[in-house]
This record gives sequence, structure tokens and C-alpha cells, in this order.
Amino acid sequence: MSITVVGSVAFDSIETPAGRRERCLGGAATHFSLAASFFTDVRVIAVVGEDFGEEQESVFWARGIDTQGIERAAGKSFFWEGSYLDNLNEAKTHQTDLNVFAAFEPKIPDAYRDSEFLFLANIDPVLQRRVREAMPDVKLVAGDTMNYWIKDHRAALNEVLKGLDILLINDTEARMLADNNNLVQAARAVLMHGPKTLVVKHGEYGATAFFSERSFATGGGEAHHPFRAPALPLEDVVDPTGAGDSFAGGFFGYLASQSEVTPAVFRRAMFYGSVMGSFAVERFGTERIQALTRKEIDDRFIQFRELTHLD
Amino acid sequence: MSITVVGSVAFDSIETPAGRRERCLGGAATHFSLAASFFTDVRVIAVVGEDFGEEQESVFWARGIDTQGIERAAGKSFFWEGSYLDNLNEAKTHQTDLNVFAAFEPKIPDAYRDSEFLFLANIDPVLQRRVREAMPDVKLVAGDTMNYWIKDHRAALNEVLKGLDILLINDTEARMLADNNNLVQAARAVLMHGPKTLVVKHGEYGATAFFSERSFATGGGEAHHPFRAPALPLEDVVDPTGAGDSFAGGFFGYLASQSEVTPAVFRRAMFYGSVMGSFAVERFGTERIQALTRKEIDDRFIQFRELTHLD
Repeated sequence: MSITVVGSVAFDSIETPAGRRERCLGGAATHFSLAASFFTDVRVIAVVGEDFGEEQESVFWARGIDTQGIERAAGKSFFWEGSYLDNLNEAKTHQTDLNVFAAFEPKIPDAYRDSEFLFLANIDPVLQRRVREAMPDVKLVAGDTMNYWIKDHRAALNEVLKGLDILLINDTEARMLADNNNLVQAARAVLMHGPKTLVVKHGEYGATAFFSERSFATGGGEAHHPFRAPALPLEDVVDPTGAGDSFAGGFFGYLASQSEVTPAVFRRAMFYGSVMGSFAVERFGTERIQALTRKEIDDRFIQFRELTHLD
Repeated sequence: MSITVVGSVAFDSIETPAGRRERCLGGAATHFSLAASFFTDVRVIAVVGEDFGEEQESVFWARGIDTQGIERAAGKSFFWEGSYLDNLNEAKTHQTDLNVFAAFEPKIPDAYRDSEFLFLANIDPVLQRRVREAMPDVKLVAGDTMNYWIKDHRAALNEVLKGLDILLINDTEARMLADNNNLVQAARAVLMHGPKTLVVKHGEYGATAFFSERSFATGGGEAHHPFRAPALPLEDVVDPTGAGDSFAGGFFGYLASQSEVTPAVFRRAMFYGSVMGSFAVERFGTERIQALTRKEIDDRFIQFRELTHLD
């Protein structure tokens, strides 16, 4: 089944202890769709400026990603500059230029309308909701958000949360959304806001899925126990940018590739998410995922199993 | 096989968001031996003062722990006062009175000398080394340490590390010991100091074992991949004091209960360590572990498997 993703396609200037890159291809929708493209067909809705050319678009084409929903506007693309010099787990933002993104009005190509899976990457919840409502027939909707929307756009965000099957956020965001420092209590509070399932990403410690009683990923008599996927202990983390979006892409891409979302499929999807996140950080920007093969993904999946399984 | 443990037996005054306890039974050797006692015979070497009476000693007796190595000295027992009001992951120390511990000279009862397993809990590395040398025939030696010894008693600590099969420390201590913020690089550096295996405890995110090529827990053609045990997402963390020592007790106790330390046994030991750590924090001090049953341990072991395993 195919995924439509709406989110940012951007240029990132990034500095980490491993070095610096100027204006490399970035954005949540970019990282998500590249990771998901190893599992299923992906279609992107975004807006870019005149600085987005064939060099950038060919990165999507090389992975068979449908880019007809990437709108061209007069002006410059979304630009972000950040560094991870003191702490690889948290970016320090130096500059954010919304540029053409400031007036983004997502338009859904007719050819996208039969997508069964929809991913609302981290953008203004007003836009997330609009896209959600414009695609009422999707089978499964997942989404991301960030501290900025949680703090200052709560009413709009709450409307989005009501319509989500799966919310993917990090520890800090989950605790902020629930105003509760205990992760289990925070998860329960977040699930009361609407999402049937909550995936909390812990960076170098992996990710935990929490299920509500309404979750599609439980049932068959199984209890609603959480499930924790590890992250791979990595010797060299070059650039954490896009790790969370790559996790979401691997996770949701794998779900979309299966005929049914059973608890076992959901667990494997968590592992594939962690696998894609572990590759993403090995080089700057999209470099590692662009060069990736399916064989490498499957080998690392086995490594994740060995890392965590008793037998 | 039996374990001899040397370390502190103490009184703790503890404040957490869940409340406050005055002078409850504590100390690394206490938490370790209570947890280990569910798996194998345990013998304790420690020193206590005149304030340690039958009420305290009966906590050990109730779990069948051999206390003839707990020496009585004139004066007061080791006392620690701390709080976790801002951060459940890190204690704030308000007071440490070494009392009788200041002049502690570990004496090993003859009846302890046939122990096959030795655990050097977090005490002065000079004393750890002395006990290690006095028990040359033990089969397996594990130990713990803390930031104070890493910073200011490095030479003595290095001597201890050389003689360890397994070192159990937390993330911060591993990074400090190696002077390296990357956990994988830090682990490799620590393993070069002597321990054949390193277990790094991540608090609410579990623990990771790293193996050197000389590790007893690898072999049989298996590669030296790390292994990660989860922690249980807990809704109520009442008191984190002793969680790390309870992890060590469950881990080492299970190892000692098996006829051979295979890679599969080692992995299960990591899970049992996490299981005991998860119980320890559910009530103040030793309260939860004192009231525990083997059935509860085995049920939670299954819960840990469900939390992490794909099938």
C-alpha cells in the first residue's frame, strides 16, 4: 500500500563534532520518504523554492518517490541551520528561515488520493488537519509534532491528535504534551487525547510503543503491554539530523508494506524504524540512506534481534 | 554456587516525590545480597555499628543470607542521606557519615572461602583489591565503583579493574572512566583496562553488556555483539535507591545459579538484573524486595520478554 507524506523539504546547514555541511538536502518529509521508500511506494506533498533543482529532486527519483505533490513557489526553500557540538542528542538551532513554507497551502494531487497510509510530518497542525480532512479514505494515519506546536498551538494540535492512529514523538515532547515526567503516566495521558498508539523515541536508547485499548495493533487476546525497540550502540554518530524522521519512515513504510497490521507486524515495524534511524546518523543529511541497500537493512534487522533477544 | 559480597551495610534517610523514610536499611551489599538471594546462597562481608540490631539482621536471615562476615564495631553504622526531588534518575546527597566504615578492614570468615563467585560492591578500591587477593580461588569476580573513586582514586581502581571478569557501572561512570562521551568507544576503552565484560546501566532505559574478545560470555563461534536488556516502563517509581545494586544482585545471582556461563545464560542474567532493579524502585529501601516472591520474579521476566521480543 502506498504512503502519502506531507511535510518539509528543506536545505540544512549542519555542524557536528564530525564536521560541517552547507545547505544539504533535508526536511522531515525528505528523511521520512527516503526511509519509507525501501518498503513501499511513497508520495510527497511539500513546497520548495527556486533553489530546489534537478539535483535535489533526483534524490527522490532515485528512490522511486513520487514528487508531483512538491509544489514550486517563487522564492527560497525552507532553510534550517543548527549544530550538535555539545550534545549529539539535541540540536541547537542557529537559524530557521521558513521562506516559501510560510505560505504553504498543501495541494493533494489526484493521483495521491488512493493512498491508504498518510503521514503528517512535523508542520503547523492547522495544515496537518487540513490534509487529514482532504484524505478521508486513508486506512491509517500517523503523525509527528514538536515542542513549538505543543507549547503555543495546543488547540490546533489537539484537533490533529484526535484524528491520529499513531503519534510518534520523543521523550521530551511526550512529557511536555502530558505535563508529566513519568513516561508511563505521560503516555496514558497522551493516548486520552486521541492517538490509538503512541511511539516515544528515546534517541540512543531506542523507542517504546504504548497502546490504548482502541489500538489497531493489539487484539487477538493480547494485552496492551508496551513494546520497546532498542537503538544500536553506534561507534560513530556523524549527524543526528533526520534520525527521528527516518525512524518514522522505516516504521510506517514497513507497516504499509504488510497486508495487515497485526501485533507481530507492529513489533517488526518498530525494529525497522530503529534500523533506519541507526543508518541515518552514520553520515551527514541524507547521504547514508541514499547509498543504502535492502540487504544492509535486513542484515541490521538481524543485528537488532541479536542485540535484544534471549535466544 | 555461592556468592560472597563485600560492601556497605548502612542506614539511609531518603526523600523522593513519593515521601520520606528515616534511617531505613540500605547499603550496596544489602541491596545486592537481598536480590541475589532469590537465585543462590549469599554471604556478606561488611562492618556495622552498635545501631545495627536484630531488626536489621533479621532482614538478611529471612532471605537465608549468611551474615557471619558482618563485623560489629564500636560506634555507628554508615549513614547516607539523599533526595531525588528534582530528578528520579540522580540522587542528591545531603550527608554521608562513614562512621565505622572509615576504619573498615574486611575479614573473610573461613566458611566463605569456598565461594565460587565474588562481588566487590562500591567501596574503596584498596579494600576491593584486598578482598580479591584474599580469595584467589573464586571462579568469577564482578564489581562496581562510582564517580568518587574514578576521579580521585584512579591508580587503586585500575588495579581492581585488572582483576575483574565483569564491571557493572552506569553511563556517566563509563563515560568518565574512559573520558569519552560515545558509549561504544567508552566501552572499548574500559575493556582495555581489564574487565572482560562491561555492563553499563542506563536507569529507566535498561542496560547494555559489552564483551571483550577474552570474555567468558562469548565463544561458541558467536561474535562479540553487545546485548541490551530493557528496563520496564514503570508507572510509579517510589525510590530509586539500590536499583543498581539490585540489578547487580539479580544478574550475578542468576549467573551463580547456573552450572555454566554460556552466552544464553548471560543474556538471561541481564534480564534478571533488570527485573530485580524494576522491583527495587517500587517501594522505599528494601521494602519491595523483602516482600518479593520467586513467582513474581518469573512473571516479570516473561513481561520483559514480551516487552522486547518480536515473536
